[in-house]
Amino acid sequence: MDGEPTVTDEVVAGLRDTHDPRLRELLTGLVRHLHAFARETRLTRREWEGAIAFLTETGKSCTDTRQEFIMLSDVLGLSMLVEGLNDPHCPGATESTVLGPFHLTRSPARERGADIDLTGGGEPCVVSGRVLSRDGVPLPGAAVDVWQADGSGFYDVQRPDVQPAGNGRGLFTADDEGRFWFRTCVPSPYPIPVDGPVGGLLRAAGRHPYRPAHIHFIASAAGHVPVTTHLFVAGGDYLDSDAVYAVKPGLVTEFAPVDDPEAARGWGVPNPYRHARFDLVLAPA
Amino acid sequence: MDGEPTVTDEVVAGLRDTHDPRLRELLTGLVRHLHAFARETRLTRREWEGAIAFLTETGKSCTDTRQEFIMLSDVLGLSMLVEGLNDPHCPGATESTVLGPFHLTRSPARERGADIDLTGGGEPCVVSGRVLSRDGVPLPGAAVDVWQADGSGFYDVQRPDVQPAGNGRGLFTADDEGRFWFRTCVPSPYPIPVDGPVGGLLRAAGRHPYRPAHIHFIASAAGHVPVTTHLFVAGGDYLDSDAVYAVKPGLVTEFAPVDDPEAARGWGVPNPYRHARFDLVLAPA
Ligand SMILES: [Fe+2]
Ligand SMILES: [Fe+2]
Repeated sequence: MDGEPTVTDEVVAGLRDTHDPRLRELLTGLVRHLHAFARETRLTRREWEGAIAFLTETGKSCTDTRQEFIMLSDVLGLSMLVEGLNDPHCPGATESTVLGPFHLTRSPARERGADIDLTGGGEPCVVSGRVLSRDGVPLPGAAVDVWQADGSGFYDVQRPDVQPAGNGRGLFTADDEGRFWFRTCVPSPYPIPVDGPVGGLLRAAGRHPYRPAHIHFIASAAGHVPVTTHLFVAGGDYLDSDAVYAVKPGLVTEFAPVDDPEAARGWGVPNPYRHARFDLVLAPA
Repeated sequence: MDGEPTVTDEVVAGLRDTHDPRLRELLTGLVRHLHAFARETRLTRREWEGAIAFLTETGKSCTDTRQEFIMLSDVLGLSMLVEGLNDPHCPGATESTVLGPFHLTRSPARERGADIDLTGGGEPCVVSGRVLSRDGVPLPGAAVDVWQADGSGFYDVQRPDVQPAGNGRGLFTADDEGRFWFRTCVPSPYPIPVDGPVGGLLRAAGRHPYRPAHIHFIASAAGHVPVTTHLFVAGGDYLDSDAVYAVKPGLVTEFAPVDDPEAARGWGVPNPYRHARFDLVLAPA
């Protein structure tokens, strides 16, 4: 187009002396896409000023316990995309999903069968499963790192005043048959924090801030690719509109209602309870 | 590609309820280009973490007198692109260039011929010219807003301790023949501030932070499109490598050496001096 600004090629050429070839590749891609965005949308000066103000505000909102830029990446689907690019799904293995912003602390090591719900009050539930290789062979000694929000939708790090550290978290080791199990409460949907710029963006976009109920997992075993994933509660709200786009159908799991006093006694939970069975299948390294 | 993440379409579909159609267009373009960037570069988790940290740091560096995100936009050529998109060049009119981050204060109104160099010490110089319509008709009463760094490369707002407010700035009114003139010192090249994240980016990219010597102008007149531009000093350093890509050949102007005691007396400058002639030609509104 006649009169179209030519600055893009000049900026790309100016990256020729970037020391690290990978950084040069990244900066070149960034400049080309950023400029293509501005050209296609015919970005106005006023809109550019709005973007500068939004990014500045987002930076100012970041604290030690809150990462507004990660939330921005999450709600724009970038986090889920990066997860997918780095963990191409291996057919037969458990699908991965986002790590999320709340894996801030080391989960405490717990015995199989322990109750990770230290404050109580939610609907009692058992989660059990096996860590398996893709060919169905159990992986004894596999590590299963678990974390979830409490019944009111907050992680321990968000509410240090009312939740003991480690609430909702546990690091389990699979037994000789690759099995793990633990007790907890059925997780609830929760909203991501909306009192900052990302909340404003969601409101402007007419989007709700909720995540469907889930438990986070990282499973790892020698000789295998670790998987970072969620177990989603089947039948819950927001499964088709997760604010961070992390749902995959294969991760949605029945939390089956059980009314069986003897079984309840065996797991150490009150009767009735709910039971989720979730196997974690790892690809070979 | 088999197994390529499909999240992009889901995020774009999720923008369907954006209240403002223009915001929907902008967010859609942003998501598509951001995701295309991540896909093309196969962005790793570690690189994503680096980007999050860089943006957070850039936000934290912004203060009332420093706008690190504008500097980032400047060194990536985005500011110059937005300028170009919003001021498509009208053949025959003076070309526009970036506003820059230092038009923070109102320039003080001054009489034609005033000296805007309040601290002295630089090489004396006269700038004179006319504000004209594209057909060559003078525009009496046109406003000419001027600002520049002092001889050491700083604007008054950057060094309030050593420069009086309004140093290097003036708002002039063209006379009956569209003429304006003022006295100043010959501007010097200066570096953009490099003690923040943008400085780190420039170092990693092997780029210097300097801008070629220039005087900023905004010229406006009734019935005409105002122009925001620079006058660049011909023969100076960095004209072919401006850190913010703002140079256009038509804006590079001779600061001609003059040795003429009578002319010097006429302008009110010591002899010898330098003289830049710079007409500002405005397109019809
Ligand atoms: Fe979560
Ligand atoms: Fe400047």
